[in-house]
Amino acid sequence: MPAPLEFYFDFSSPYGYLASRLIEGIANKHGRGVEWKPYLMGAVFKVAGTQPLVAYPLKGDYAKRDFARSARLNKIPFSLPQKFPVGTIGAARGHYWLAATAPERCATYAKAIYAAYFADGRDISDAQVVADIAAETGIDRAAFLAGIEQPEIKVRLKEMTDGAIARGVFGAPFFFVDGEPFWGADRIDMVDRWLATGGW
Amino acid sequence: MPAPLEFYFDFSSPYGYLASRLIEGIANKHGRGVEWKPYLMGAVFKVAGTQPLVAYPLKGDYAKRDFARSARLNKIPFSLPQKFPVGTIGAARGHYWLAATAPERCATYAKAIYAAYFADGRDISDAQVVADIAAETGIDRAAFLAGIEQPEIKVRLKEMTDGAIARGVFGAPFFFVDGEPFWGADRIDMVDRWLATGGW
Repeated sequence: MPAPLEFYFDFSSPYGYLASRLIEGIANKHGRGVEWKPYLMGAVFKVAGTQPLVAYPLKGDYAKRDFARSARLNKIPFSLPQKFPVGTIGAARGHYWLAATAPERCATYAKAIYAAYFADGRDISDAQVVADIAAETGIDRAAFLAGIEQPEIKVRLKEMTDGAIARGVFGAPFFFVDGEPFWGADRIDMVDRWLATGGW
Repeated sequence: MPAPLEFYFDFSSPYGYLASRLIEGIANKHGRGVEWKPYLMGAVFKVAGTQPLVAYPLKGDYAKRDFARSARLNKIPFSLPQKFPVGTIGAARGHYWLAATAPERCATYAKAIYAAYFADGRDISDAQVVADIAAETGIDRAAFLAGIEQPEIKVRLKEMTDGAIARGVFGAPFFFVDGEPFWGADRIDMVDRWLATGGW
């Protein structure tokens, strides 16, 4: 079985959300799985000397237009949440608690969190809301809330974020395909071609 | 005749160079022309709160890898110049002198400047080198050098740069298709689709 695509993202990234709806189709087409790797962009901004996209003059306005346009093109429901961007530490910890206890639920969980935020406008910075969403996918709500408070889960998210930075990740979505880095939802076509050809 | 695609770029942008080799094919396919609009990114960086791509930690390393990878994918000769990025005021003024005196030469000139820098490693920050390249495309060298010193040409470049910023341009390449903005060489496929469908 060839290695899965590694998919790094922050749950607050609109382009990460779009990628969450597109990347499995590409991976499956080439007989690959997807490894979902949430991390915290806030830590990356400090190292990379960048800011959230919408904080930039000019670029921020373009980005808002492009989020919606890219979603329409791909027929993905999208509405920029009123509270945006938000901290996603609870959502990301929840992911790593699942990875440790029920890894088969990770993809469904990640897609549900993303859709709750970017399609339904729910506040995923609130751990109670995140627990509600988790519960809707069949996860035990109380166990989830306890899980995200476990010290080893907190450490795990920090390790994953530090590891992302160490590998050069500076945005979301960010993919590695057999070690080759690709940044951006608009590079999924290139990922597809890389998988089809083995690179160029 | 439908409106031409507007193509904003700085002569020091590797992705602008790639676009200079790709955009005419897309435009022609849809019966459109291309309006070449060089401007100075330095002015944009101040307003947009950004820096040259390669100045960023992490993102800069990725960008260098991606410039070359994107060029290989499109079979475009590319080598990151030793002196990069560079100021392109002379090259851009030369473009607007041509636009005022021999507009039919603009596209050939722009492509020649880009290729000289990114394929042949010539120093396009040097007005004498720019004049050499212009002369190789059939432009009178002495007239060119005099032209780029004309006050109205200097004003014209400033107006074009200010105008780009006023329209929200913050990077290169940056296209407007019937008023719709697209940023990045990796959005040329989307430009193609926009032209084919009239938008979505």
